[in-house]
Amino acid sequence: MPAYTFPVNIDDIKDAHNRIRSHVYRTPVLTSSTFDQEYGAGRKFYFKAENMQKTGSFKARGALNAILMLERTKEHIKGVTTHSSGNHGQALAWAANMKGLKCNVITPKDTPEVKIRSITHYGADVTLCEPTPTSREETCKKVAEENNYDSVPSSDHYHIIAGQGTIALEFLEDVPQLNAILVSASKGGMASGVAIAAKALKPDIKIFIVEPDEKELEKCLRAAMRLWPDPPRFVDTIADGIRIQQLGNLTWPIILNLAEKEVLTANNDEIIKGMKFACERMKVLIEGAAGAAVAAAMSSRLQQIDDSLKHVGVVLCGGNVDIDNLPWYK
Amino acid sequence: MPAYTFPVNIDDIKDAHNRIRSHVYRTPVLTSSTFDQEYGAGRKFYFKAENMQKTGSFKARGALNAILMLERTKEHIKGVTTHSSGNHGQALAWAANMKGLKCNVITPKDTPEVKIRSITHYGADVTLCEPTPTSREETCKKVAEENNYDSVPSSDHYHIIAGQGTIALEFLEDVPQLNAILVSASKGGMASGVAIAAKALKPDIKIFIVEPDEKELEKCLRAAMRLWPDPPRFVDTIADGIRIQQLGNLTWPIILNLAEKEVLTANNDEIIKGMKFACERMKVLIEGAAGAAVAAAMSSRLQQIDDSLKHVGVVLCGGNVDIDNLPWYK
Repeated sequence: MPAYTFPVNIDDIKDAHNRIRSHVYRTPVLTSSTFDQEYGAGRKFYFKAENMQKTGSFKARGALNAILMLERTKEHIKGVTTHSSGNHGQALAWAANMKGLKCNVITPKDTPEVKIRSITHYGADVTLCEPTPTSREETCKKVAEENNYDSVPSSDHYHIIAGQGTIALEFLEDVPQLNAILVSASKGGMASGVAIAAKALKPDIKIFIVEPDEKELEKCLRAAMRLWPDPPRFVDTIADGIRIQQLGNLTWPIILNLAEKEVLTANNDEIIKGMKFACERMKVLIEGAAGAAVAAAMSSRLQQIDDSLKHVGVVLCGGNVDIDNLPWYK
Repeated sequence: MPAYTFPVNIDDIKDAHNRIRSHVYRTPVLTSSTFDQEYGAGRKFYFKAENMQKTGSFKARGALNAILMLERTKEHIKGVTTHSSGNHGQALAWAANMKGLKCNVITPKDTPEVKIRSITHYGADVTLCEPTPTSREETCKKVAEENNYDSVPSSDHYHIIAGQGTIALEFLEDVPQLNAILVSASKGGMASGVAIAAKALKPDIKIFIVEPDEKELEKCLRAAMRLWPDPPRFVDTIADGIRIQQLGNLTWPIILNLAEKEVLTANNDEIIKGMKFACERMKVLIEGAAGAAVAAAMSSRLQQIDDSLKHVGVVLCGGNVDIDNLPWYK
């Protein structure tokens, strides 16, 4: 382990696991001999099916942990709010509903009806805003102040990071021989939690971040500097869960220190190929952000970076995709 | 247990499980709180995900058991053959390939290219025939005789029945509280194996057969007579895995004695609704035959038949569906 002490450690993640485990699924780890034959080049791949998690993505873990921690530290919670057009909004609504808390999710105007329905399905209110990162932040702040709600960000929050890190606890318990994990990153809540847990349990394991083309994390990691444009912008990708071009302020130092400098990227065609493989051969529906991780597993770059990796884990982070508009039909 | 002794018993099924378990997946059991809320009426449903089995369906279990038993009882096996347009052909090709045996699958001329590819993918030969049950039987017999191959039928065969019965062993081990299982039937290999195992382990459990509309198994069960037209015909359904309108000669007495007289049926719209629910909410791809079982679980008829059932198992038998032509896109 590096000498640096992170503000979230393996004990926080183990505590989070004890806190949430009876409410979330222990998702299965899938393998595919066809995948290994076609893309393995001698390696074996293991897919952690967080698409089959409650609410259809890993976000249920972090959102629930954050709410349970809030209950521990605060006497009266009036409600919770967040901004999200997708998985985190749904996860927070689900977790709040389970604990009998009010919830208001700030959502961009252009969010598809189907995503709004999956938030309101859990009894949460939805407040529409302009489709920009700035408007989302500001509207969320306003809703929190007006209602005296606690704001629960999607990624850049210690309890969220600890919750998402539980993925790696289960993954390494089920597949202790893993020597690398491929994990998609947007603001990096999942990637940083997974990195902390995995590196604590197995210091030699390598964590490779996956992102869509154009996001330039590799450049930042190599320079050890946040080189992204400000305010953060959305890149153009079908992997809508990972389109924001900036890690969070809390997640950045964790990923800078624990992840490999080589970042695996995928374009839309590669992402669709990953999604199709999962659907056709593994019989699971995954969203673009997970398709990007499958694409990274298929890529020759991974092999070029390190051909000694024999057991590679891939996080299938979510499965929330509109089944009436699957991207290969377009 | 009824006094009648079946030619396949629980010990055969346990032996089959020991024989095949290291080569097939122990498929996960899925639950959905949304399903239970919307359709449960106080019951909990458990879905055994055989769509995620090797080769994409439960057929891998029976085909492998049949080949392993053949190896035990016969000194020189030249190869194996069967007629199948789908899952059994693929499963036999896979099992033969694993054991280094030649395999020839008889397939109707009108079989989609994608299904033929999944058979040849495992190195098997394909022989085309007319798209009628009679031509399939005759061509298969001819290929077996000419090549001195052993014929391995898809369903009506004791080793196949024993192999498929292993589904119920795992299901009841994982969910011992089950008090009913819904299982689709075509010729009844899976349904009879599941019924024998489940009833042996838990005599009070109820086995409900699921089939497409028009197949009239319920009429036959109530009359205790094979009332189907001869030769067997294919009914018009999108559940192509269960479209043949006749149980086998070996499976019929088993199902007649062990299954409930009430047969649950589903039409195409209901089957599609079941498939869409599985895809959208549970994130798994299932084929029509499995969609029919989900539709049966959704049906009000099940509740009307017996409102005391609290824990109901549903076998998601397969996931081999053309993802470029999902039925809800038509």
